[in-house]
Amino acid sequence: MNILVLNCGSSSIKFQLFDTDSREVKITGLVEKVGLAGAFLTIKKPNGDKVVFDGEINDHTQGIEYVLGIITSEKHGVIKSLNEINAVGHRVTHGGERFKTSTLINDEVRKSINKLFDLAPLHNPANMMGISAIDTLLPEVPQVAVFDTAFHQTMPAKSYMYAIPYQLYKKYGIRRYGFHGTSHQYVAERACEIRGWDITTKKIISCHLGGGASVTAIQHGKSVDTSMGMTPTEGMIMGTRAGDVDLGVLTYIMIQEGIDANTANSLINKRSGMLGVSGVSSDMRDILAAMKDGNEQAKLSYDMYCQRIAKYIGSYTAVMNGVDLIIFTGGIGENAFYVREDVSSNFGYLGLEINKELNAKTFGTETIISSEDSKVDVMVVPTNEEYMIARDTEQIVSNL
Amino acid sequence: MNILVLNCGSSSIKFQLFDTDSREVKITGLVEKVGLAGAFLTIKKPNGDKVVFDGEINDHTQGIEYVLGIITSEKHGVIKSLNEINAVGHRVTHGGERFKTSTLINDEVRKSINKLFDLAPLHNPANMMGISAIDTLLPEVPQVAVFDTAFHQTMPAKSYMYAIPYQLYKKYGIRRYGFHGTSHQYVAERACEIRGWDITTKKIISCHLGGGASVTAIQHGKSVDTSMGMTPTEGMIMGTRAGDVDLGVLTYIMIQEGIDANTANSLINKRSGMLGVSGVSSDMRDILAAMKDGNEQAKLSYDMYCQRIAKYIGSYTAVMNGVDLIIFTGGIGENAFYVREDVSSNFGYLGLEINKELNAKTFGTETIISSEDSKVDVMVVPTNEEYMIARDTEQIVSNL
Repeated sequence: MNILVLNCGSSSIKFQLFDTDSREVKITGLVEKVGLAGAFLTIKKPNGDKVVFDGEINDHTQGIEYVLGIITSEKHGVIKSLNEINAVGHRVTHGGERFKTSTLINDEVRKSINKLFDLAPLHNPANMMGISAIDTLLPEVPQVAVFDTAFHQTMPAKSYMYAIPYQLYKKYGIRRYGFHGTSHQYVAERACEIRGWDITTKKIISCHLGGGASVTAIQHGKSVDTSMGMTPTEGMIMGTRAGDVDLGVLTYIMIQEGIDANTANSLINKRSGMLGVSGVSSDMRDILAAMKDGNEQAKLSYDMYCQRIAKYIGSYTAVMNGVDLIIFTGGIGENAFYVREDVSSNFGYLGLEINKELNAKTFGTETIISSEDSKVDVMVVPTNEEYMIARDTEQIVSNL
Repeated sequence: MNILVLNCGSSSIKFQLFDTDSREVKITGLVEKVGLAGAFLTIKKPNGDKVVFDGEINDHTQGIEYVLGIITSEKHGVIKSLNEINAVGHRVTHGGERFKTSTLINDEVRKSINKLFDLAPLHNPANMMGISAIDTLLPEVPQVAVFDTAFHQTMPAKSYMYAIPYQLYKKYGIRRYGFHGTSHQYVAERACEIRGWDITTKKIISCHLGGGASVTAIQHGKSVDTSMGMTPTEGMIMGTRAGDVDLGVLTYIMIQEGIDANTANSLINKRSGMLGVSGVSSDMRDILAAMKDGNEQAKLSYDMYCQRIAKYIGSYTAVMNGVDLIIFTGGIGENAFYVREDVSSNFGYLGLEINKELNAKTFGTETIISSEDSKVDVMVVPTNEEYMIARDTEQIVSNL
């Protein structure tokens, strides 16, 4: 089955054509600056060849039309006709409490996603533009929504509720939803597959460390707690996001600086995190380079970054009363071996020990980096959200 | 040496006359509704007798004058003359980065405490009123300030910095300060005294659970991390304070409800926590009674309360790479045996085991509640901040 996987941002369209029979990615690409001057489209073929196309792309429908043209073109195409696309799977950021699993898109689902715009004002409208574009361009093709929040819908109330007036939960749905669900689920399942383990018998902590970052506690194969909250701001220290901060700090800054809630949002999401502390960059590679040059703020941001991860691993070990496996994934989790080493050094008390040599050689490959004697397994598992979206889409479409 | 210990709130004055030679409390009491209609003063004698006095008390100076009159009076007095007061020790909430230890009060110290009003707008001005009252009433008596934040000044930067723009630290001193320092230090030192341990060789987590609540990681006898932040809002779920919440939740509420930062502050400090979730009360005893009546929100608030404590214990165990001793103190920590049992049930993986029978009989007495085989000690140690204030005051005054 050929599944087109779409991940639409407000000015970007990430796509992948996936053959679920062969588990082969036929083509992948990205449209950037949608609706802006200088829009362009990059495709990448399985052999690694990249081609860039310029063009005026005013909206998501035009962008996806462009994509569909290229993937069926004689020169760059990978299918002969649009009829060969069996289904489209959309990454949808926020599924609220309504969506606990991936779901076939119909009018009721469209309306429900629209209702969640308030909770994900930057993401859900963009996701919806992708769905509407396919409604127009491929009206006969079934579409499936795969929600970034769905995997976390198994959390117990004691993990997802905040200690604020209960009516705010009832009135606005204010609670922890968590994100990166597709990634956490994928790496946990994949790690158990590699290990030959039954996931329902294991206590797993997965660390998705990229530009955004979250840590999830997975017990009996289900998310029981996660570090991102109602919004992606909570938890880890990220590239430009603050993660956990005293609420009293935020109101203090707002009063002292005379800024409103929208400006405060921008402060904590775009000017904070590694960038805010280091003053250098939001990119871990730049931070590391600055540390090597003796930059103390860069070193501080790095130490804070690693300690925050360790604190959540410690915390979730308590939540599950133990841990069998810790997984690192995402751009930093898969590649920054020094982060993995420094975080792991906090867990001697669990009998956790990593194979430092092997760890230092591991970049983006599925690897067990704990030593043979370690009482807790530590693994690197590259994430593959697109595969999960394609898989869920296939399953749902097959049952139609 | 006779030390008068004062803990001044905005409309209250708590006092204690302490004889440091005999470690005996000569008299203790509380002035309430200072500056309000219906002010009154309660004293409690060592034999348990309580006496209540009414009177117009317009300010802290009048209130303390009243107190000094009573403790030297023929009928209720415990000393013959004010000359018998050797020193006054003040609890001061916020010492900022300036005060790392208890300090003899002079003009420079007065100015520094005034400068910290911004960081503790409810507490430091009230503490200062107590100091000014003694300046007027007992001008020759040396005064010492004992800061609630001082014990935590040993935290490393990776624990006290927030991942927000670094300039905000430089400009306003925005960082984690922590509170309840005197209590955490007291119970940790006392527990080691009881155990015959050298505190510098132990990893300790102390849980101060009262109307306000905080958890502290103590390594080599020093605070290395603590759950309260720049303000007392952060960390634990408290009677009416929210503790940890996604910053994005706060800006969301402010925008949706159209409230400003001051109203938001009131929401997260006065209408949240156990009261906000349960809808019943801020008092753990009421919550428990409601749970027994089948109130589900009360049960939810209780489960959240216990899980939050467990998460911090897990987190700080990671920060210190292990834990030797967990201490419970404060009104709830000393008395709510069910909280201690439920929190402890998360730590089987550490080999922690409590003696449930003994725990269920322990109310406010120094007790080792872990079982003999437990790999982690668990203790109840009633806090005694007044003793610490008297002790520090005596030490400083003795060296004059």
